[in-house]
Amino acid sequence: MNAVFRPGSPYGTHRVLEPQGVMPQGAWKIDNTMSIFDNEILIDVLALNIDAASFTQIKQEAAGDLDRVAKIVQGIVETRGKHHNPVTGSGGMLIGTVAQIGPALSGRTDLKVGDKIATLVSLSLTPLRIDQIVKIHLDKDQIDIQGQAVLFETGLYAKLPADIDEKLALAILDVAGAPAQTARLVQPGQTVVVIGGGGKSGTLCVYEAKKRAGPSGCVIGVSPFEKDCARMRQLGWADHTLQVDARDALGLMEAVAGVTQGRLADVVINCVNIPNTEMGSILATRQHGTIYFFSMATSFTAAALGAEGVGKDVQMIVGNGYATGHADHALGLLRESPALRALFEELYV
Amino acid sequence: MNAVFRPGSPYGTHRVLEPQGVMPQGAWKIDNTMSIFDNEILIDVLALNIDAASFTQIKQEAAGDLDRVAKIVQGIVETRGKHHNPVTGSGGMLIGTVAQIGPALSGRTDLKVGDKIATLVSLSLTPLRIDQIVKIHLDKDQIDIQGQAVLFETGLYAKLPADIDEKLALAILDVAGAPAQTARLVQPGQTVVVIGGGGKSGTLCVYEAKKRAGPSGCVIGVSPFEKDCARMRQLGWADHTLQVDARDALGLMEAVAGVTQGRLADVVINCVNIPNTEMGSILATRQHGTIYFFSMATSFTAAALGAEGVGKDVQMIVGNGYATGHADHALGLLRESPALRALFEELYV
Ligand SMILES: NC(=O)c1ccc[n+]([C@@H]2O[C@H](COP(=O)([O-])OP(=O)(O)OC[C@H]3O[C@@H](n4cnc5c(N)ncnc54)[C@H](OP(=O)(O)O)[C@@H]3O)[C@@H](O)[C@H]2O)c1
Ligand SMILES: NC(=O)c1ccc[n+]([C@@H]2O[C@H](COP(=O)([O-])OP(=O)(O)OC[C@H]3O[C@@H](n4cnc5c(N)ncnc54)[C@H](OP(=O)(O)O)[C@@H]3O)[C@@H](O)[C@H]2O)c1
Repeated sequence: MNAVFRPGSPYGTHRVLEPQGVMPQGAWKIDNTMSIFDNEILIDVLALNIDAASFTQIKQEAAGDLDRVAKIVQGIVETRGKHHNPVTGSGGMLIGTVAQIGPALSGRTDLKVGDKIATLVSLSLTPLRIDQIVKIHLDKDQIDIQGQAVLFETGLYAKLPADIDEKLALAILDVAGAPAQTARLVQPGQTVVVIGGGGKSGTLCVYEAKKRAGPSGCVIGVSPFEKDCARMRQLGWADHTLQVDARDALGLMEAVAGVTQGRLADVVINCVNIPNTEMGSILATRQHGTIYFFSMATSFTAAALGAEGVGKDVQMIVGNGYATGHADHALGLLRESPALRALFEELYV
Repeated sequence: MNAVFRPGSPYGTHRVLEPQGVMPQGAWKIDNTMSIFDNEILIDVLALNIDAASFTQIKQEAAGDLDRVAKIVQGIVETRGKHHNPVTGSGGMLIGTVAQIGPALSGRTDLKVGDKIATLVSLSLTPLRIDQIVKIHLDKDQIDIQGQAVLFETGLYAKLPADIDEKLALAILDVAGAPAQTARLVQPGQTVVVIGGGGKSGTLCVYEAKKRAGPSGCVIGVSPFEKDCARMRQLGWADHTLQVDARDALGLMEAVAGVTQGRLADVVINCVNIPNTEMGSILATRQHGTIYFFSMATSFTAAALGAEGVGKDVQMIVGNGYATGHADHALGLLRESPALRALFEELYV
């Protein structure tokens, strides 16, 4: 326990080691010493949910070997003081138990020591120390660890609900921004394409898109894999499933044109975990349509110059992980749809 | 002259050498042989306008040395068959004279051999051959060359207007997307911050933003350089100029808060030519505001995770270089404002 607490910046800039003058997310290295400043919250970490684009890259680098995955994950945290994948630039989030609350926050937070929470800020800016890797769940993007983390004063969190398994909450809160943005973007009667519609965020977006587009709308799920397409068909929220690799831009455009009488999509939601799908997203969208890039493997220049290159006047939105009320919204989807809940329990618990 | 023309894809995929199966913009290397396919247009190139983020990077790599800039530019084109900067991912555009029109386009284009045009698609997807570098204009991001380029069937272009100097047209058409998007985004009465407001696109955005925000609105121009701020003050379209480095995220937020009674900006338009300004843009925007990232030095993950990290529910838009009518709109600004035209003639002719 600290005798005297040092005052910290609300944004955690006091933890930045290099380069100086940037914010924690932009920093190469931050200070992961686990003695907190006066406005920080110390967390005993239970599990990490590694961002899908990051975990896909790490699994590839490790050729699927568990020990090598562990080494890469520990190496990143030792080097940078945070789990900020230097290749993909992305992080993930965590669940844990509140261990200590800085005195400057007293009376200003609804948390108490012992509360179980999920952080709603990226691991790419969260001071983290891993003491031991307990178990790696290769197919769930999750890693059980012993260790600690720090939440800054402006860092968002959600208390874990009593009625939902904590691993399930970890899985769904990681991608809570996607269905929340889908709810804002999709209007009744619209045609919506969800690329990677068989994945974690993709499934939530297909469900939410159908809710918003309604019976007069049309939701199209895309995946290159038969098992994902079969699952989408079984769940029944997609009006069409297209078994296409989204990296094949022309193939995707033709497939979407095929089921929309050439009209293409009003809204495309990109939820893949791999690079090089910007152009497919652009070609599948009609003039003056909207593309929501939730995928962390999106290249800014490929999107901007790709649209220009084919004269597509489309609005392309950067997938902000945060939207007001996104955590409650995502947990609410599990409560409202038994089919969604059963699927997520099967896959992530 | 070709005896027989081979049929080409409207998107130019027939020119992709590696990797196979992607579009020309996404390709590492495209075929820059200057014998055209049946739906292509051959251009005798007069000058290139290198994208500002790319040219800034090249000038840094060359330590400002003209010969080294020439070597880097030629090296990129020899390696990739297009001027696609591998560090920044961006290109630029060109002006030239129509040398040949593929027979499949006859009756389908308003162009004829000898017309002077600007391409409105990025150099990052345009087959280009440089025979000779004639002159490098370090301060204008322009390079006069002898060489040829190819425009694909779906590639947009603008005929150079008779009343505007061609170098001036080249300069302004390069960034035509920025004022067009500003016109769409800014509503009367809003507070708008233009980061890099003293630059080429920034000046156009400050002008357009003031036009749209009107007398009840507030336009704030940001630059770290006294000369840029002085110019903004002299032009008189910005209500405030802030001499701040946009990489100093907290400094920028405080400066914008200072002139907006803490309200921050409804719309932030990012027109810088350097990396690491995502966080400053986010912190300068109020909750539920909008950020338009025109800068090609924008990192997708830094924007997405940065906003999440500080709980900012802002809409972040990828700066599509194309918007319907953007070329006419930009040229129209020069015709409507003598002050704007005088400035651009001084700087770019
Ligand atoms: N913006 C944010 O704040 C934020 C937050 C969290 C996550 N993300 C990003 O969101 C994306 C999705 O995350 P997630 O957790 O939903 O990942 P996920 O469950 O792995 O889903 C990705 C889906 O894309 C599919 N896919 C793979 N290759 C494809 C291709 N060529 N064409 C079409 N689909 C393909 C995958 O199939 P297989 O699984 O069968 O390979 C999977 O179903 C990731 O890029 C992640 O980084 C963003
Ligand atoms: N989305 C698209 O399709 C598209 C098309 C064209 C261009 N672009 C991009 O748009 C951006 C602007 O292009 P441009 O031609 O307008 O470039 P520009 O004329 O060089 O303007 C950039 C401005 O930013 C200023 N600046 C430099 N460092 C700064 C800092 N730390 N804080 C605030 N301002 C700073 C520059 O000042 P100094 O010049 O004095 O250094 C300059 O005034 C570039 O990133 C370019 O790649 C995008």
